[in-house]
Amino acid sequence: MSVTIKDVAREAGVSYASVSRILSNKGRFSEATAQRVRKVAAELGYFKNKAASDLSSNAPRVIGVVMPQSHTNFADSLMQGIYDASKADGFDIIISYMGGDDDKAQSAAIENLVSRNIAGILLLSIQLKVEHVKRLQHSKLPFISVSVTLPYDIATVTSDDFDLGYQACQFLIAQGHRRIALVGPQVNDQTVGTQRLKGYQQALAEHQISFDEALVFPGAFDYESGERLLQRETILERFTAVIAASDMVALGVMNAAKDQGISIPEQLSLISIDGTNLTQLTRPRITAIQQDFHQMGEVATRMIIQNIMANQPLYTTRIANHLLMGQTVAKI
Amino acid sequence: MSVTIKDVAREAGVSYASVSRILSNKGRFSEATAQRVRKVAAELGYFKNKAASDLSSNAPRVIGVVMPQSHTNFADSLMQGIYDASKADGFDIIISYMGGDDDKAQSAAIENLVSRNIAGILLLSIQLKVEHVKRLQHSKLPFISVSVTLPYDIATVTSDDFDLGYQACQFLIAQGHRRIALVGPQVNDQTVGTQRLKGYQQALAEHQISFDEALVFPGAFDYESGERLLQRETILERFTAVIAASDMVALGVMNAAKDQGISIPEQLSLISIDGTNLTQLTRPRITAIQQDFHQMGEVATRMIIQNIMANQPLYTTRIANHLLMGQTVAKI
Repeated sequence: MSVTIKDVAREAGVSYASVSRILSNKGRFSEATAQRVRKVAAELGYFKNKAASDLSSNAPRVIGVVMPQSHTNFADSLMQGIYDASKADGFDIIISYMGGDDDKAQSAAIENLVSRNIAGILLLSIQLKVEHVKRLQHSKLPFISVSVTLPYDIATVTSDDFDLGYQACQFLIAQGHRRIALVGPQVNDQTVGTQRLKGYQQALAEHQISFDEALVFPGAFDYESGERLLQRETILERFTAVIAASDMVALGVMNAAKDQGISIPEQLSLISIDGTNLTQLTRPRITAIQQDFHQMGEVATRMIIQNIMANQPLYTTRIANHLLMGQTVAKI
Repeated sequence: MSVTIKDVAREAGVSYASVSRILSNKGRFSEATAQRVRKVAAELGYFKNKAASDLSSNAPRVIGVVMPQSHTNFADSLMQGIYDASKADGFDIIISYMGGDDDKAQSAAIENLVSRNIAGILLLSIQLKVEHVKRLQHSKLPFISVSVTLPYDIATVTSDDFDLGYQACQFLIAQGHRRIALVGPQVNDQTVGTQRLKGYQQALAEHQISFDEALVFPGAFDYESGERLLQRETILERFTAVIAASDMVALGVMNAAKDQGISIPEQLSLISIDGTNLTQLTRPRITAIQQDFHQMGEVATRMIIQNIMANQPLYTTRIANHLLMGQTVAKI
């Protein structure tokens, strides 16, 4: 049996109603009594039953987060931003972990939250299926997609993926590169990969460099997509620089280059997109266009709390990217 | 307003009681009716209110997990093990994210779970304060410390930290090394670091190698603890091999060695403890004594479910470690 409010009242020698007022911080009570009650409550290990109080309230101060299996350290920075912003407003977070990337895992993780009496939902870096969008809309809960732009009309807080590709390419051109490969993006996702590709094309166009389809090496944003590049051909005659579509791709390129004796940046320049701290653990350190994941988490959380508390509308916004200077790009 | 069981009953043309029996899968109902009801429930987007049903049940099928801020990919593997085991038994997981390592963050994360009507708690890699142990004991919820041995009499599922230090040292000795540094452990934690140190000492003793205190470089299991080692002295005359107390320490040693032109493993051998996939992303790949985090998560989860469902006692158990062969140890 867990400790109840009645146990606290008996032990502190006050009424049940007084304890209730004091612990929920509502109505009138003397500070002296309040101190005694709080002390007793702490000693007995009494916790307000949040499940019960959430049920009796229209606006439980709890945000649910759907978190994917993560292979980079994105999720850490995003969570820290969400945590910092929610703490500031006195909100709790509960996380539903999505074990796989399949449809069933996505459905189970969302249902786990939707059915648990929360006030709103943040979806972290999830390629949300259309049926789950409908399900969320049915729930009437506010929800925001964080770090992934989806092809639906729902609120999102992300980086500008077009800009990530654009900035990376611009920087290489400014260093004198004109034959630039784009490695590892998913190019049929209509969102992340496609946008990065478009940004890359735009930067080329602005400098009168003609776009060469053979210099785009589609992939799955993963280590293998990068590693494969240097295994399948002698590339040094075809391009002088690589834009890796993600940090994991960049690590793949870098290791494959080492394995084949291609030195970075002397023979091949490399710039990555994402700029998580993985890029700072390599030698040489990887130059990157960096997404601000912490801020992304903070902004999304503040927006959903404003919606819950003050009925402010949700909207779509983009967080600025920055150049993270490393040692993998040479001037030519 | 969210969809209620009454909406489902009206739409399906059956009684409230029938819908309740069918959706909770208890009592008698015809399969034909059940199919219709489930279809209507899905169409309307009805979800069983788990907060309400948890409250009315003595054993909610929900496990709470307290998750720390993580700087390695430990947490991913642990969570995947927990997820796999809980899914197999039809349990949900909710995670309370501990934003900082301080006392307050620990207290808030635990209270967030304890007060939320769950069946048990897993603490992931957390240096639990004694007052929070008491708090958890007060809650009467079963709880297990996962991946960290604590100096209290509570159930834990971890690797054998003594064995991690012992195996790492044994392996280096078997390759001919006798002057072996231990880098980066916390040596006043009485648990992880101290145990790894004792294992290291035991292996030395078994081979009549006298223990030299000057070859232990205490730290905080972090990148900087490794990086510092090679910055403060010319070490090559004093030892031929390093045991890094964690993967992050190993990365620090490796990068500092590169910066100083010390080649691994030709001039210095390196073995790491943990063996997360970070060790496989470096060149050369890091040799490690590997902890099986996935299995750790699975075993802890199965144990707590057995406790919840069948009143089986909690206990302390250790998961076996394995040598993960890399390219950073040379025979001398």
